[in-house]
Amino acid sequence: MDNILVIGIAGGSGSGKTTLMKNLMAGFGDNIAVLSHDNYYRAHDDLPFEQRSKLNYDHPDAFETDLMIEHLKALKAGGTIECPVYDYTIHNRTSEVTLIQPRKVIIVEGILIFENKELCKLMDIKIFVDTDDDVRLIRRIKRDVAKRGRSLQSVLTQYLETVKPMHEQFVVPSKKNADVIVLEGGKNLVALNMITSQIQQHIQDNTDPSEA
Amino acid sequence: MDNILVIGIAGGSGSGKTTLMKNLMAGFGDNIAVLSHDNYYRAHDDLPFEQRSKLNYDHPDAFETDLMIEHLKALKAGGTIECPVYDYTIHNRTSEVTLIQPRKVIIVEGILIFENKELCKLMDIKIFVDTDDDVRLIRRIKRDVAKRGRSLQSVLTQYLETVKPMHEQFVVPSKKNADVIVLEGGKNLVALNMITSQIQQHIQDNTDPSEA
Repeated sequence: MDNILVIGIAGGSGSGKTTLMKNLMAGFGDNIAVLSHDNYYRAHDDLPFEQRSKLNYDHPDAFETDLMIEHLKALKAGGTIECPVYDYTIHNRTSEVTLIQPRKVIIVEGILIFENKELCKLMDIKIFVDTDDDVRLIRRIKRDVAKRGRSLQSVLTQYLETVKPMHEQFVVPSKKNADVIVLEGGKNLVALNMITSQIQQHIQDNTDPSEA
Repeated sequence: MDNILVIGIAGGSGSGKTTLMKNLMAGFGDNIAVLSHDNYYRAHDDLPFEQRSKLNYDHPDAFETDLMIEHLKALKAGGTIECPVYDYTIHNRTSEVTLIQPRKVIIVEGILIFENKELCKLMDIKIFVDTDDDVRLIRRIKRDVAKRGRSLQSVLTQYLETVKPMHEQFVVPSKKNADVIVLEGGKNLVALNMITSQIQQHIQDNTDPSEA
């Protein structure tokens, strides 16, 4: 494939980047492939469950980012990749993989993707979704307590012990690597339109008349 | 005119919003009209030069924003407006006016335009150009000392006495009203492409086949 547009979408936990991404993808179908950093959490077959559950999952070292870079390069070169599948319930990588084929647009998403310079260089558009810390915390509480059945106490402890310090140490400085900052991710229709416009134009410019 | 796209571009002094705006306009010719807040600095025929030169020009009250709102509404309704012309050398409005005709796209620009809720409501896309404070200061020094022949001391005094406190009090909070934040205005080609794409699409969607 000659011309692949790589769009990076980063932002803190609960910023609304998943909603933005889903809205962006609507209507483009097979023209967009997604690469999520979360799938590249390191395998830890060497550790028992108890120890795995205590690892710091908000630090850049928790990810096998080199493999993600390799995969993104392969996709850009027109290859199909075998994306690892991570299972949160066992805090480990599963034995399955997902086949991802190259598309005209690739969205790379994750909290920490702008922290890695080499990964950044592979992106054409870098969008950081910025949402107030308290709003992000509320969303995280709602998600983890209501949807994932965790206790409020454990969510708040994790937030203070790793989520917040890692956010301040790695996510906030990585905002500087973004091209564009979008406020209040999911609900921002203006930003959505702006990015959609550009995806549309890219797909249009890279579609053979015979395909259309 | 049925459908006018109003784009607001704000950002602190020296942020690079003028460069972004000029780059945005290149190639669109008569399809874009510009409304600059600076032209709406209040007339002060009541005060002698000495007193006029000491006014705080970084406070929202320095502008006749109501008139700008009225003019923007008139343009959106298809009318032509008489935009005041401000002369910095005399710190006063001149007796001249500039005729501005409605166009498919209107760019509204100024440091404080997102501070006014009513003005914000008239904009379809609100872009805030965000650049580090020290970088902005350096640009301001270069502009005022080299190009406007002012002394370094007077530039720094004005910066500390009005530019910086007004920036913190009014400009920084108004950033929240933006839809999209662009880092390093003038040099940000990715953001430029993204906004240009949308202008292009709007003009295309609102051009009669007979005009094209």
